[in-house]
Amino acid sequence: MIHDNAPIVTGNASILEGNSFKAEDAAALPDRERSLIERREARLGSAYRLFYKKPVELVRGHGAHVWDAAGDEYLDLYNNVPTLGHAHPAVVDAVTRQMSTLNTHTRYLHAAILDYSEDLCATLPGDDYQTMFVCTGSEANDLALRVGRTFTGGQAWIATSEAYHGNTALVTAHSPSLAGAEQMDPTLRVIDPPDTYRHGSSDRAGAAFLAQVRRAIEDIEKSNEGFAGLIADSSFSSDGVFTGESGMITAAIDLVHEHGGIFIADEVQPGFARTGEAFWGFARHGLVPDIVTTGKPMGNGFPVAGMIARHHVLEPFSSTRPYFNTFGGNPVAIAAAQAVLDTIHAEGLQQHALEVGRAFRAALSELAANHPAIGDVRGAGLYTALELVTDRDTKTPATSLGLAVIEGLRRRGVLTSVCGPGNNILKLRPPLAFAADDIPRAIDALDAVLSEAAH
Amino acid sequence: MIHDNAPIVTGNASILEGNSFKAEDAAALPDRERSLIERREARLGSAYRLFYKKPVELVRGHGAHVWDAAGDEYLDLYNNVPTLGHAHPAVVDAVTRQMSTLNTHTRYLHAAILDYSEDLCATLPGDDYQTMFVCTGSEANDLALRVGRTFTGGQAWIATSEAYHGNTALVTAHSPSLAGAEQMDPTLRVIDPPDTYRHGSSDRAGAAFLAQVRRAIEDIEKSNEGFAGLIADSSFSSDGVFTGESGMITAAIDLVHEHGGIFIADEVQPGFARTGEAFWGFARHGLVPDIVTTGKPMGNGFPVAGMIARHHVLEPFSSTRPYFNTFGGNPVAIAAAQAVLDTIHAEGLQQHALEVGRAFRAALSELAANHPAIGDVRGAGLYTALELVTDRDTKTPATSLGLAVIEGLRRRGVLTSVCGPGNNILKLRPPLAFAADDIPRAIDALDAVLSEAAH
Repeated sequence: MIHDNAPIVTGNASILEGNSFKAEDAAALPDRERSLIERREARLGSAYRLFYKKPVELVRGHGAHVWDAAGDEYLDLYNNVPTLGHAHPAVVDAVTRQMSTLNTHTRYLHAAILDYSEDLCATLPGDDYQTMFVCTGSEANDLALRVGRTFTGGQAWIATSEAYHGNTALVTAHSPSLAGAEQMDPTLRVIDPPDTYRHGSSDRAGAAFLAQVRRAIEDIEKSNEGFAGLIADSSFSSDGVFTGESGMITAAIDLVHEHGGIFIADEVQPGFARTGEAFWGFARHGLVPDIVTTGKPMGNGFPVAGMIARHHVLEPFSSTRPYFNTFGGNPVAIAAAQAVLDTIHAEGLQQHALEVGRAFRAALSELAANHPAIGDVRGAGLYTALELVTDRDTKTPATSLGLAVIEGLRRRGVLTSVCGPGNNILKLRPPLAFAADDIPRAIDALDAVLSEAAH
Repeated sequence: MIHDNAPIVTGNASILEGNSFKAEDAAALPDRERSLIERREARLGSAYRLFYKKPVELVRGHGAHVWDAAGDEYLDLYNNVPTLGHAHPAVVDAVTRQMSTLNTHTRYLHAAILDYSEDLCATLPGDDYQTMFVCTGSEANDLALRVGRTFTGGQAWIATSEAYHGNTALVTAHSPSLAGAEQMDPTLRVIDPPDTYRHGSSDRAGAAFLAQVRRAIEDIEKSNEGFAGLIADSSFSSDGVFTGESGMITAAIDLVHEHGGIFIADEVQPGFARTGEAFWGFARHGLVPDIVTTGKPMGNGFPVAGMIARHHVLEPFSSTRPYFNTFGGNPVAIAAAQAVLDTIHAEGLQQHALEVGRAFRAALSELAANHPAIGDVRGAGLYTALELVTDRDTKTPATSLGLAVIEGLRRRGVLTSVCGPGNNILKLRPPLAFAADDIPRAIDALDAVLSEAAH
């Protein structure tokens, strides 16, 4: 499977699976691409992967559209990092202005970090949240796991089976999607996500999830490891996008709290208005997280991220452990983040995501009438999963079809990728600039590719 | 002590030591600063620290000079992150141009990352280095420690007693300067830096360092942990800046290699022409590192960092472990880094650092004639340490004087900080834009502050 922007890897298989370019595909490429790939092989570590049998050399972007070096245009259904849209002028202007003025660090006073922290905290369900700025979602989760362990005195976390929380040593060891290649923390308990498709309803998926969380807590409490809590993306993006109905995972989070654990809401994927129904993914379920971590969409591509924790949860760590992040929360990073937040509000992007996302899924559901391979269409706002199956009754993942569809879409000028353990779930997660006008093109391309694949 | 831009903490004391602002100082502040500090306390975690009894609110910078909100100007002898100088137009222009065009990630082809990797590798002592881009020096060191463990099969690292290598869980556990507040990795061996001042010469300091490394390796080899190697900033910045003479630590690194360990050169401080004598700190000693990590100065404040490893060292990790960094090496980060590298070459900043640094230390040495508290003046290029002692014979650290001098300099419009275990070593590490014209002002301010303190 491919976890969003995360490593191309499957939990129990080769790191070369997924829709990554393979060396054997090189011979078929034009000189320019082949030359770039040879230079990559010489100077970048071999862990670097490219998308597609015929990798794309992107040179320009605007809104939800990108162009390659040959001048061909693509509809971008994949990239959530440029959340407002590629090269959004509000972010460019804010970064340029601040970079031309000053860029230091948080050991000097600066009003902008306070304005932003206050605006960000105003989106959270409580008045006692405090921020710590870092540069990446990985750094945010690395810090969150330590803050949670210090607060609870427990070591053991619960995470879902295909979760990817980042790339530091500690976070890698708490990312079950990497279990085939990386060593997991021995105290980690891995549970299934609430698969609304296979359970048949949010109620049943939520009940199964609750049972899994209960079992994991019991197991931890039988050990001497201490229960730290649960870390989850409440939209379960890497697991296959199980947004579910409002409240689906509330009982499970309540149980975590009853047992003294904390809930880390990893909002690197669903945060910043993407789900349309709320500003944060967890807010769709009415949850009050102990810690919220953010990353990718926060600065429209500028490396800025944050860990936001309730005061009493943060204090045991913050008052005794030194932590400083040189670039974290610097004035330029803050300028980028403020521009993103302001633009989401000013352009009504949350409502936009809600409406366009609904229309997109309605069109995809219509498409399903003609394509039996479409097993499920689900999601919230501009976060949509299209699950492909070999059989609607057995719901068997259509793995090879998933990869064929991605390559077919690329040939037709539409960029996206797959997720889930079977590489069969199309993750449709465009910049929020994706508009109603873009829907027909996405649908037509999918229609054509699925029709081709059926013959 | 204060470790450069690292946490204000002493290895075995309170995290409130150093020249950080304390709550009790708030009453004496003007309304504006007090209000900003109250807002910080409400919305930022308590781990955030401010410099100075009267914190500085910086609003603008140019070259080696910064201005506060009241319009007062300061000479910046502290900040190495804006390595070219504050708000350098080459970096602003490069970032603006690329942000207006496209900002994606390394799963698509992009020529700029290859141009930069090739230019960066051209500065290294071998043709087999490969790069992996990350966002912070902490991420670079986190990755480097894992790459080194995978390559050697060993767990145990050697680091110096006041070293600070970053803020992730793994790197924190390998940063002995934090040992009073954070748990160190049980396999970590901590050794003394080559203190040229107390040993009296580079030869003797190098021999003592070699003996320490030998003892640590023997200790590791008696365990079943396996020897991974040595991680060090070859200028020992956080330990007190022991640049030493060329070759001082070469025998120690040779010994590491003889015993199958690797050498990680943490160039977050000395890299990118700072030492004047070479582009990299390790190159002053003619070393060939297995891994080089970079951070702070690489993008003039843009969050970009890198881990550069020899191919055979990287390959066992890179070919089997998935690693992806969303923002790492994105086109905008690369544009910032390329602008820094090009400007260092175009403006001859390495030679500039060499010449201005020598002149600065010559002036500081003259000053020492009138101030017996100055025990030592040392460094390379624009990395200078001024060590303050209570007695030149005993070389006892003048801790309270160190802090008084920093506060006194701040009142006179000169910004800097201290390092070393005794808080008594002034770390003079300005942006490379610091010029010969700036020297008299720095000297006059120091002269005045030291004269005051003597009475």
